[in-house]
Amino acid sequence: MEINSLRKNAVPLFGLHIDAEEGEARAAHFATAHGTVSTPAFMPVGTQATVKCLTPDQLDAIGPQVILGNTYHLHLRPGSEIIQSLGGLHRFMNWQGPILTDSGGFQVFSLASMRKISEDGVAFQSHLDGSTHHLTPEKSIEIQSQLGSDIVMAFDECPAAGLDRLSLEASVNRTTRWLARCRRTPLAAHQGLFAINQGGTNLDIRKKHLEDILAIDLAHPFEGFAIGGLSVGEPKEVMESTLRDLVPRLPKDRPRYLMGVGSPEDILKGIELGVDLFDCVSPSREARHGRLLTSHGRINIKNATHRRSDEALDPQCGCYTCRGFSKAYLHHLMKADEFLGLTLNTIHNLSYTVELTRSARIAIQKGQFASFAKATQDRWQSQPET
Amino acid sequence: MEINSLRKNAVPLFGLHIDAEEGEARAAHFATAHGTVSTPAFMPVGTQATVKCLTPDQLDAIGPQVILGNTYHLHLRPGSEIIQSLGGLHRFMNWQGPILTDSGGFQVFSLASMRKISEDGVAFQSHLDGSTHHLTPEKSIEIQSQLGSDIVMAFDECPAAGLDRLSLEASVNRTTRWLARCRRTPLAAHQGLFAINQGGTNLDIRKKHLEDILAIDLAHPFEGFAIGGLSVGEPKEVMESTLRDLVPRLPKDRPRYLMGVGSPEDILKGIELGVDLFDCVSPSREARHGRLLTSHGRINIKNATHRRSDEALDPQCGCYTCRGFSKAYLHHLMKADEFLGLTLNTIHNLSYTVELTRSARIAIQKGQFASFAKATQDRWQSQPET
Repeated sequence: MEINSLRKNAVPLFGLHIDAEEGEARAAHFATAHGTVSTPAFMPVGTQATVKCLTPDQLDAIGPQVILGNTYHLHLRPGSEIIQSLGGLHRFMNWQGPILTDSGGFQVFSLASMRKISEDGVAFQSHLDGSTHHLTPEKSIEIQSQLGSDIVMAFDECPAAGLDRLSLEASVNRTTRWLARCRRTPLAAHQGLFAINQGGTNLDIRKKHLEDILAIDLAHPFEGFAIGGLSVGEPKEVMESTLRDLVPRLPKDRPRYLMGVGSPEDILKGIELGVDLFDCVSPSREARHGRLLTSHGRINIKNATHRRSDEALDPQCGCYTCRGFSKAYLHHLMKADEFLGLTLNTIHNLSYTVELTRSARIAIQKGQFASFAKATQDRWQSQPET
Repeated sequence: MEINSLRKNAVPLFGLHIDAEEGEARAAHFATAHGTVSTPAFMPVGTQATVKCLTPDQLDAIGPQVILGNTYHLHLRPGSEIIQSLGGLHRFMNWQGPILTDSGGFQVFSLASMRKISEDGVAFQSHLDGSTHHLTPEKSIEIQSQLGSDIVMAFDECPAAGLDRLSLEASVNRTTRWLARCRRTPLAAHQGLFAINQGGTNLDIRKKHLEDILAIDLAHPFEGFAIGGLSVGEPKEVMESTLRDLVPRLPKDRPRYLMGVGSPEDILKGIELGVDLFDCVSPSREARHGRLLTSHGRINIKNATHRRSDEALDPQCGCYTCRGFSKAYLHHLMKADEFLGLTLNTIHNLSYTVELTRSARIAIQKGQFASFAKATQDRWQSQPET
């Protein structure tokens, strides 16, 4: 009801509007039923219907444009039909902003055991209880439709590193066939489908895969395009050269999403090369281990050097953690194994990363992205990790 | 600076003003440098400079009149001199409301090993690293003065249950001598000292101890009185009969604090018998195990019966958790071991307990406490735990 009425009155959903460009970098926006997404944007990960350690209010104060949910996890627990019966993922987790759900593919390949891939899909055993499940392109879309996310990811195979050329091609070609099946499967009215480009570090295969994706797109357009299977251990230069060649080939008028990235350095590089959307568990996971991102480089808050420090973690940061607490207090919370330490650290690292993309957007709009990126990197490198 | 200016302009600190009485129950208030305390009041416990799982903002929304800090824990980690150098406990944990610190006595007797009690004080080994420490009445007051809490508790011995009469008398008499030493030790200008009555379940010894306390009070008045060593395993009837006889003997014009209580039932009973202040880890600890207090009785949110429930935990509760989330979501968070479950559960159980004392205060002011207490208890008993 709510979504339909939104849809009726408002601007058409999806379709990217470019606000400014600087080289390949771009500031843009697109509409979803749960609000406008301004890019570049970092999307915090909410695997199990919660961005770990944060309430929706705390998340809202951080101000992400989109957050992620994980189809694999939510399908296994509590079950997508339960979430649907409770009004969908937005209502279940009380998050009213845009949500992207992944396809479950990546987690099946990285978490589940006893995987058996066929043309139809993947049979696997749950990492929770060993129960047997079957995920297909149609099933993945159906689950994401039950969850009611705004952005639905196509079901793909993320090929293992070091696969021989023939196996890699076979995998990518199957992903293409799965993509066509995804596109044919009905979505909820407010949802958009993103296609995923694979091919490991083989640029030829990636380009061929992109051509196949764009052939489907011609008849049945996608709402966005993602690059998967990078940032999985390959050298930085390989990721960079792959993006440099590949990103300009993606349609300019749809969002571009680099999956599983990442670090502040990689995000700035991705923006420079034309990427709009990023996601990664690293800022929040690192936060829970006390490794914090600041405008003057990385800090391990557990180090004894912070024990008596009355300073804010990052005096240039305006987040709840930096406004209210000293490094000494954050150090104490981690040493004392207090949950609040995880929460305050997560608030900071996610604020820092979201703010980085927000600042990049403003810099692009001013035509100052190149100098912004250089100055930011220089500040990080000027001080060793403490 | 802040505290001094507060002190200059405002009403004199401490000294209880009774707003209404009903039988022994009373609604009252007293001033501290960090704000007025309205009673009856339940004080959440913030052992290690944090009420577990909550930010100060979340705690503020719950609205406790006072929170607790633990001298034993803070002395061992991070150390009271560090907290003092960082501006005191209020600033360290970013909590601007009133704080009560215990004396460290109870924790030394319940957590530390290798305790050796002498007339001077207690030598013990830290439960963290086995290091040797010495706590005396003077040292306890000095630490609490460094912490800068509003209410300072006298250093006492909490005698073990089942002590023979002679040993119990010896212990209580030493606590009296320690109390006199506490009263002679300088506090910060804004701090008030509460005396603690001991004597286990022996009413004669408790009465004699109270006489000794009041003899000291005559010359050097205390700012409040506490009853310690109850709710430590004795039968409910013994706690009740002890309070019934003892509480009316406490000075009417000072706050009365029943230490380590407790459950909703015990709090209502304490209020009926004339107690003003309560504290207990139980509501927050139970919350972390999924055991939740509601106006219709106790709920174990991990039970499968809540798996699909779209209802709020307690439709009569206005807390953040009950306003925004279903029982199914809270169930899911606990099953998925998500930190957010601990936070949302803690918000609810503390809100419920704080609200219970706030409602009791209003009922006393309306002369309806007896019927309020009965109706509340009847509602709890009308439904089995689910």
